[in-house]
Amino acid sequence: MSSSTASASEPDAPAAARRDLASAYAEVRAASAAFAAPLAPEDQVVQSMPDTSPTKWHLAHTTWFFETFLLKPSLPGYRPLDDAYDYLFNSYYQQVGPQFPRPRRGLLSRPTAEEVLDYRAHVDAAMAPLLDRADAATAALVILGLNHEQQHQELMVTDIKHVLAQNPLSPAPFRVRVRLGSEAEAMTWLDFDGGLRSIGHDGQGFAFDNEGPRHQQFLEPFRLASRPVTNSEFMAFMDDDGYRKPALWLSEGWALVNEQGWEAPLYWEPGRDGWTQYTLHGRRPVDPAAPVSHVSYYEAAAFAEWCGARLPTEAEWEVAASGLPMEGRFLDMADLELEPAPCPPGAGAPAQMFGDVWEWTMSAYAAYPRYRPAAGAIGEYNGKFMSNQMVLRGGSCATPAGHVRPTYRNFFPPDARWQFSGFRLAKDS
Amino acid sequence: MSSSTASASEPDAPAAARRDLASAYAEVRAASAAFAAPLAPEDQVVQSMPDTSPTKWHLAHTTWFFETFLLKPSLPGYRPLDDAYDYLFNSYYQQVGPQFPRPRRGLLSRPTAEEVLDYRAHVDAAMAPLLDRADAATAALVILGLNHEQQHQELMVTDIKHVLAQNPLSPAPFRVRVRLGSEAEAMTWLDFDGGLRSIGHDGQGFAFDNEGPRHQQFLEPFRLASRPVTNSEFMAFMDDDGYRKPALWLSEGWALVNEQGWEAPLYWEPGRDGWTQYTLHGRRPVDPAAPVSHVSYYEAAAFAEWCGARLPTEAEWEVAASGLPMEGRFLDMADLELEPAPCPPGAGAPAQMFGDVWEWTMSAYAAYPRYRPAAGAIGEYNGKFMSNQMVLRGGSCATPAGHVRPTYRNFFPPDARWQFSGFRLAKDS
Amino acid sequence: MSSSTASASEPDAPAAARRDLASAYAEVRAASAAFAAPLAPEDQVVQSMPDTSPTKWHLAHTTWFFETFLLKPSLPGYRPLDDAYDYLFNSYYQQVGPQFPRPRRGLLSRPTAEEVLDYRAHVDAAMAPLLDRADAATAALVILGLNHEQQHQELMVTDIKHVLAQNPLSPAPFRVRVRLGSEAEAMTWLDFDGGLRSIGHDGQGFAFDNEGPRHQQFLEPFRLASRPVTNSEFMAFMDDDGYRKPALWLSEGWALVNEQGWEAPLYWEPGRDGWTQYTLHGRRPVDPAAPVSHVSYYEAAAFAEWCGARLPTEAEWEVAASGLPMEGRFLDMADLELEPAPCPPGAGAPAQMFGDVWEWTMSAYAAYPRYRPAAGAIGEYNGKFMSNQMVLRGGSCATPAGHVRPTYRNFFPPDARWQFSGFRLAKDS
Amino acid sequence: MSSSTASASEPDAPAAARRDLASAYAEVRAASAAFAAPLAPEDQVVQSMPDTSPTKWHLAHTTWFFETFLLKPSLPGYRPLDDAYDYLFNSYYQQVGPQFPRPRRGLLSRPTAEEVLDYRAHVDAAMAPLLDRADAATAALVILGLNHEQQHQELMVTDIKHVLAQNPLSPAPFRVRVRLGSEAEAMTWLDFDGGLRSIGHDGQGFAFDNEGPRHQQFLEPFRLASRPVTNSEFMAFMDDDGYRKPALWLSEGWALVNEQGWEAPLYWEPGRDGWTQYTLHGRRPVDPAAPVSHVSYYEAAAFAEWCGARLPTEAEWEVAASGLPMEGRFLDMADLELEPAPCPPGAGAPAQMFGDVWEWTMSAYAAYPRYRPAAGAIGEYNGKFMSNQMVLRGGSCATPAGHVRPTYRNFFPPDARWQFSGFRLAKDS
Repeated sequence: MSSSTASASEPDAPAAARRDLASAYAEVRAASAAFAAPLAPEDQVVQSMPDTSPTKWHLAHTTWFFETFLLKPSLPGYRPLDDAYDYLFNSYYQQVGPQFPRPRRGLLSRPTAEEVLDYRAHVDAAMAPLLDRADAATAALVILGLNHEQQHQELMVTDIKHVLAQNPLSPAPFRVRVRLGSEAEAMTWLDFDGGLRSIGHDGQGFAFDNEGPRHQQFLEPFRLASRPVTNSEFMAFMDDDGYRKPALWLSEGWALVNEQGWEAPLYWEPGRDGWTQYTLHGRRPVDPAAPVSHVSYYEAAAFAEWCGARLPTEAEWEVAASGLPMEGRFLDMADLELEPAPCPPGAGAPAQMFGDVWEWTMSAYAAYPRYRPAAGAIGEYNGKFMSNQMVLRGGSCATPAGHVRPTYRNFFPPDARWQFSGFRLAKDS
Repeated sequence: MSSSTASASEPDAPAAARRDLASAYAEVRAASAAFAAPLAPEDQVVQSMPDTSPTKWHLAHTTWFFETFLLKPSLPGYRPLDDAYDYLFNSYYQQVGPQFPRPRRGLLSRPTAEEVLDYRAHVDAAMAPLLDRADAATAALVILGLNHEQQHQELMVTDIKHVLAQNPLSPAPFRVRVRLGSEAEAMTWLDFDGGLRSIGHDGQGFAFDNEGPRHQQFLEPFRLASRPVTNSEFMAFMDDDGYRKPALWLSEGWALVNEQGWEAPLYWEPGRDGWTQYTLHGRRPVDPAAPVSHVSYYEAAAFAEWCGARLPTEAEWEVAASGLPMEGRFLDMADLELEPAPCPPGAGAPAQMFGDVWEWTMSAYAAYPRYRPAAGAIGEYNGKFMSNQMVLRGGSCATPAGHVRPTYRNFFPPDARWQFSGFRLAKDS
Repeated sequence: MSSSTASASEPDAPAAARRDLASAYAEVRAASAAFAAPLAPEDQVVQSMPDTSPTKWHLAHTTWFFETFLLKPSLPGYRPLDDAYDYLFNSYYQQVGPQFPRPRRGLLSRPTAEEVLDYRAHVDAAMAPLLDRADAATAALVILGLNHEQQHQELMVTDIKHVLAQNPLSPAPFRVRVRLGSEAEAMTWLDFDGGLRSIGHDGQGFAFDNEGPRHQQFLEPFRLASRPVTNSEFMAFMDDDGYRKPALWLSEGWALVNEQGWEAPLYWEPGRDGWTQYTLHGRRPVDPAAPVSHVSYYEAAAFAEWCGARLPTEAEWEVAASGLPMEGRFLDMADLELEPAPCPPGAGAPAQMFGDVWEWTMSAYAAYPRYRPAAGAIGEYNGKFMSNQMVLRGGSCATPAGHVRPTYRNFFPPDARWQFSGFRLAKDS
Repeated sequence: MSSSTASASEPDAPAAARRDLASAYAEVRAASAAFAAPLAPEDQVVQSMPDTSPTKWHLAHTTWFFETFLLKPSLPGYRPLDDAYDYLFNSYYQQVGPQFPRPRRGLLSRPTAEEVLDYRAHVDAAMAPLLDRADAATAALVILGLNHEQQHQELMVTDIKHVLAQNPLSPAPFRVRVRLGSEAEAMTWLDFDGGLRSIGHDGQGFAFDNEGPRHQQFLEPFRLASRPVTNSEFMAFMDDDGYRKPALWLSEGWALVNEQGWEAPLYWEPGRDGWTQYTLHGRRPVDPAAPVSHVSYYEAAAFAEWCGARLPTEAEWEVAASGLPMEGRFLDMADLELEPAPCPPGAGAPAQMFGDVWEWTMSAYAAYPRYRPAAGAIGEYNGKFMSNQMVLRGGSCATPAGHVRPTYRNFFPPDARWQFSGFRLAKDS
């Protein structure tokens, strides 16, 4: 939870801030529904693997979050639409109560997509008076809820992509122009000094609890690639039998390569004229200039080994990202281009640090020094996942614009491939 | 396939027969769609286990059957709606081509329920001219297709019941009056002589290939119960710790009892005032007088062992059923009571032989003497399942009326519980 | 259990019969130990799959049988060597008590092979006085125990073969001469009349309970092959892509072919000069003239389908076997040739009905009319396996000589391949 | 591999150093065989789970290491005892060749335990001339091989403990005196300053490659417990329902608690007079004063959460350990007490940092800055395991004396419990 969460004794937020809160609430909530609109009700039911959730589950769970942490404790007389939703749409908050088993979410045809929209409307209506008179503590919780919903917007994108990719019909619910054929900027190495550096969020503005406290780390001098590795570069690794050379791989990665028969990034299939990839706009040729995406940590690490480099640590990444403009390709409902795009020419400093693809780092996800999770159920948000996960930085083309920060720490198990996950190389100086 | 299938050289069926064919076609096809109508699109996507299929898959597969075995070979110029459907909706006909993996049917959100109805309309329209000028061979194939669709109507009922039963909301898409509280007729034993008996279908009218050829079997004298075992009687078995006495069980059954934690028939849960069961009308009290249903062969055999009886062989069952009126509770779209009902009072001869619940027999599903499956892919219909299955006889409340015969052989693995499967006791004389 | 088991009230068996009993006991018990003698202690520990058991487990379990059903109930003052053995060596007798989980038998290094021999000596010593004064009921139980041990002698052979076959070193603990290169007698068809036939054991001499009661069955006229199918004939099926033609296979068989990658019988591997097979004498060329062995029911049924024939029913097999001399290749400790041998030339009537390979029939394993298992735990011996198993007839090269009968019913699930299982063709006349 | 490995161009080690090498070789090799001596051949075959290996596999694999990395490349004319051993006893060195699948090691009854001793003798004999004239590079490889064998000595202890613990007979192959009833020293907090600290091995003497390079880390001030958490303290956590409070657990840990039914450390079972634990001396009461052992990282982290503390980072642990005498309970063949012992009274500085139990740290296992694995197959030793593992420090009662260092980094997945793994608490100052 936010390191900026105000204490309960603070006075109410001023009226202007409350108007902003209400309009932020309306905007984020509307974006979720807008994303689901082009989907058929049938699309919104399916769960393709235990890691993914049905679209309508995301729509309901983000609503449950406001109901559970705001309406029920803070709105006297609030009446839930259906008591059973508490069980169905709790994701993992053990302190709130039991949860419907995650791997079985795709077995729930009810509530229907339409009934879930009713549930959203019910909660949104009940939230209105709360937003109108929100004190600072309430506002902080609302902001947390909105950031939480933005995270689920990204998951709605990645999960529905995984769902539809299982279908031989290659459904293309989102129709957009295709931009291909451009060339990526040549990759160069940027040098960074070592020494004691301050890392983590300083408490100004919203951040998740795991981004702080700000603290010092000692870094050796290092070099960082000017942009992420491209599909074209990754195909060179594939052409050099990268997927068949055990010496390049971490032990668990090599086991997966063989068990799962990995030969290319997720969603790639050979076509008549070269590799194709499934996208939410249908199956189309792989863009050589775009950053490689949908690779696991193991593939990223094997590629780095192959070319004599390594992945950056998250501290190195953060040092390099600090002060850069947060420009890049993000989730944009108005112009839906749900794939990473090539690095624009003429970018000097590190480019595409934000947006396009999440970048695997070599850092395992762990608590920063003196980190303590928030009290109560809300403290389950981040800290309890600090095992067997690697940190990714920067955001992707499925991340809502405005939801990125240099200190933002995303995390996934090293075998995860269904996110828009790519990587950038680093080296010792 | 039918033992009455005419050869291709036979003259066309007379016009009146062709009118009957067209009207039978219209009626059966409409019934499938009618059953699905009260369901939400979301309901029609879900697959609750590899054995069940989504409703819209059933609606599409039965359509694929007519397209594959009639339109493509016999209607010049027929153009499929979508070539990919051949792969998606082939169930198991290896000679037709590869199949989308059965356990993954629930991952297909597309074609949507509405698109499947379009597919049905497309095929129905193309069938019209074929029905108009059907020769005997074509007519036989159409009749096979209609019987096939009736079988899938039953599966649509049992599968959607299984799907919705996974949902803690206990959805009740079919609203009907509930009839409870009646008392079952007392059970009596009926005696039958032994000797050489003729068993199997004689070729008059439609039958599946596995029902013939008619042949002789030698039977010992036996006794048969006047009606199926009731819920009340089964609860006595449960109360006597029937599920905890290994001596009553077949070895594989006992393993399942422990692995799966069976303590009652499928869909039963303890309620405040006794046992309840999930039905397509919602969760409601178990009717003590109705035949027990949703039990496996293992539970049926354990119950029989418990009360010093056994299950009948399929030959015994058929001898007893011959000549009886085919009365009982069947699938009736006009008055949807999708549960077995108590045996009506005053029934003298064996009652409820047809309808209400399928009755497990102690006979493994095997070929009758001189049985040969039909040539070509259509021959895969029945014969290739002759291992690890037990025969059930008589039909259930989910079987379409008119789809039952004394010689009809249903078959399921002995652990199957999601059908309306009950049983009737037998004894040696 | 034996249909000839005497009642408890019968007088003692005469002294000569008791001497015979003691010498039969000594002989059978010695044979088990003799078989294990060439094995290393390490060999006797391993369990290669849940279906197989370690050699020393077999040696202990057969001993436990005498301890449990004879010594504990009938020898006053008997003291078990170790109370824990009751739990470790009970195979599946639920009425006796709980069992150490079957799939974990290979985790038990203790008792060691030597300690198991001590256990055998302890029980054998305690049995001596019981054998000396055995009444008829005791004698019947001893005879059952000896037949039980003979069954486990066969399992010791098949299980250790499976264990050692996992080892790339192809261990050959049993050194014997190899006989190869002979030619099999040409196969001919023998005709049998139909009609009412008596089937099953008549109660004279020992038989297991599942072999009776003797009863009538009506058979159609049929033809039976003069000898089992040979390796050479089976290779013709393989060469004709028999393992790649789904139309030949039962549905579950086809699924297994694909899941398990079956391309040949178990233990076969391609060598430089053709197919080889692992045997307990090491890996050696497949003998073309010998009966094919280590095939599942599915492979047998697919082969029969391929050549336009079928498998016999067990009743047909029994009719054909009645009155034939029980000659063939059996387990012989003195001249250990643990593989089936070619059919000798000049055999007129059906040859190799006994010994060499068990023959799959098309009959599912079920109770004969009026069958009732014995009372008490001993009744668990046979009846509780009557689901999902097929009957095999005749005995194999791993069956102890003297342990075969025309009425003997062996049974295994249709996917089992680690027994010496082959087959003989049949046809409708 | 050692950061002190000399280059190939260095002159031969002096004669005295070579004598030391030969005697170190003899000593370490003899210790492995001595440990296995009290075991039955049967004990040495069993593999209780994929993570453990049979004793005789350890004995063979450590031998294979010398054969593969020393004899084959460096001893002209060396003839292997059996070519197949290369495949059977390669653990995971992909660059050497394929490996017999790890989860199937328990299926190999051959080579027998005795044949493995022959293999050891064969390799030891061949090593003699190599040891006599070892240059520095050879000596470095021998020392690596001996350290490798010492690691496997520890695994031999932990694996055979896991194997024998599966057996209800609770075998006790190692007979020793039992020391119980002592009291642990009270736990106190020791304060450490923060600041830049040097971490990692400096290259003087042997170390594994993952212990270096030595580098700087910035630490906050911290507090460390004076000794590990005891069984008595852990029982207080259990008594307070620690295993039933989800708020204390990492998410993956809580899933395991429920899936595996964890209620206590591995090997603990309730007895009449309190908790007992399986040891290689048989089952015996849990010693309240001894350090808790056989707990996973998840249990360690949950305990720390429960008492408001945390685990130390590996850097904190190393700072605290530097300069302390390496005293504690280690593997000692002469006085085999294969369990951790209570902290001796009067220990002032951190006690039991070495020996007794490995201590889980909160650091994921990762490369130190500028780490590069050694070239060739030997480089697979450590680096390829840097995912999904946590670092443990200090050594256990199963670690050979002399095989510990302040910089030594052991690593296991966070769910591993079969090592002698305990933990020590830390706090922010």
